[in-house]
Amino acid sequence: MSGRLVVLGTGPGKPEQMTPEAAAAITEAEVFFGYGPYLDRLWLRPEQRVVASDNRAEIDRSRAALEAAAGGARVCVVSGGDPGVFAMAAAVCEAIEDGPATWRALDLQVLPGVTAMLAVAARAGAPLGHDFCAISLSDNLKPWELIERRLRAVAEAGLVIALYNPISKARPWQLPAAFRVLREVLPVSVPVIFGRAIGRADERFAVVPLAEAEQHWADMATCIIVGSAETRTIERPGRDPLIYSPRSARG
Amino acid sequence: MSGRLVVLGTGPGKPEQMTPEAAAAITEAEVFFGYGPYLDRLWLRPEQRVVASDNRAEIDRSRAALEAAAGGARVCVVSGGDPGVFAMAAAVCEAIEDGPATWRALDLQVLPGVTAMLAVAARAGAPLGHDFCAISLSDNLKPWELIERRLRAVAEAGLVIALYNPISKARPWQLPAAFRVLREVLPVSVPVIFGRAIGRADERFAVVPLAEAEQHWADMATCIIVGSAETRTIERPGRDPLIYSPRSARG
Repeated sequence: MSGRLVVLGTGPGKPEQMTPEAAAAITEAEVFFGYGPYLDRLWLRPEQRVVASDNRAEIDRSRAALEAAAGGARVCVVSGGDPGVFAMAAAVCEAIEDGPATWRALDLQVLPGVTAMLAVAARAGAPLGHDFCAISLSDNLKPWELIERRLRAVAEAGLVIALYNPISKARPWQLPAAFRVLREVLPVSVPVIFGRAIGRADERFAVVPLAEAEQHWADMATCIIVGSAETRTIERPGRDPLIYSPRSARG
Repeated sequence: MSGRLVVLGTGPGKPEQMTPEAAAAITEAEVFFGYGPYLDRLWLRPEQRVVASDNRAEIDRSRAALEAAAGGARVCVVSGGDPGVFAMAAAVCEAIEDGPATWRALDLQVLPGVTAMLAVAARAGAPLGHDFCAISLSDNLKPWELIERRLRAVAEAGLVIALYNPISKARPWQLPAAFRVLREVLPVSVPVIFGRAIGRADERFAVVPLAEAEQHWADMATCIIVGSAETRTIERPGRDPLIYSPRSARG
């Protein structure tokens, strides 16, 4: 069996933020599986084949990619950002666990990338400068009550919170509900950072206090960072304010 | 004032995991500030100047870099991994907040990178596949009681936990104490992943159950990922097991 499967991330969107390691793997692969908009970011040769699928078809996509690799192809599964953060690496592992034994023998490599929260944080300053967490607001695969419980726990513990998958047409009320929970626990002055397509032509970036945070700032490609009570704002003349979370904390 | 300050990360260690954006900023800079071992990773031209400093001199290093930029130089502050995750970006912001007003007018850019937990996760499979957090075990800048409280809260909430700065000569007992707290909350069978210098010649990588996790697996450059009760292990013939956290969760 000479096939192999590489699961990689294209980074947050700007081509210069994709690692050379991921770019080399793209050059070497024969067939690519992924969500259409991510595949559209790749510059491929005519003989490289693309199999685009819908956003939510992750397990079917993983199985198709594993089958192609087991059949001897050099296969690439493409995520945005980092493939291990709310992306394809876990779906591929799930498919392997439930699939034929031959899939466990495959040459599988996961290549890390710059995940969205790191790009949004860099654009803002250093809001992830102390302990933080990343929580997906999608209740497609876990109950909403669990998400609310987690939000409350991490906010009470003083962690900065990065929210992935904040909103979609099918999930319109979850983000406002999350802001309500966070307002019960955190000072309503903590900064909330909305970032989307950072560094690209269609970038959207905004910072508002939690009291004024509203869902219309976000779409499904937005990553939101909610500061802790320690997070600080530095006003700057003629520039966006700097948002950062100090390295030190009181008890 | 034509100076500028770029704060960037070299990635987790493998040169192919540094972004082209960071590499371009390194080419353009005149003077570099950072911890010696990170600066040693750079390939510089003879006229590019290096100011190495000790691991814990972050504020002094930030001030020196800001002064050089305010004096008109093109300055680069170098972190390992991502500059915003337990690294230099927050220290630079702290120095700006406490420094002269001119520093707020500086052209400052933070460039994201691949942080250590993403490289360790990719090496293991997809252990960060669901909600997760990153916690520094260093009690140099926050009380140990706060760290224990946070560990307990996130473990009870079911998050996967990435531990940064797990141990050092000056902090020998904190990692064993953290494992004790986690054993009180989590099943002792959850996998604990130790990763260091992933993809480099001096890589160290190990997975053990929480029951057997010991401090001697880690040094100050190790990132540790502690699974949740949902995290799974797939045995593979002739390969390391795959560790992943499924995207779905029960309530």
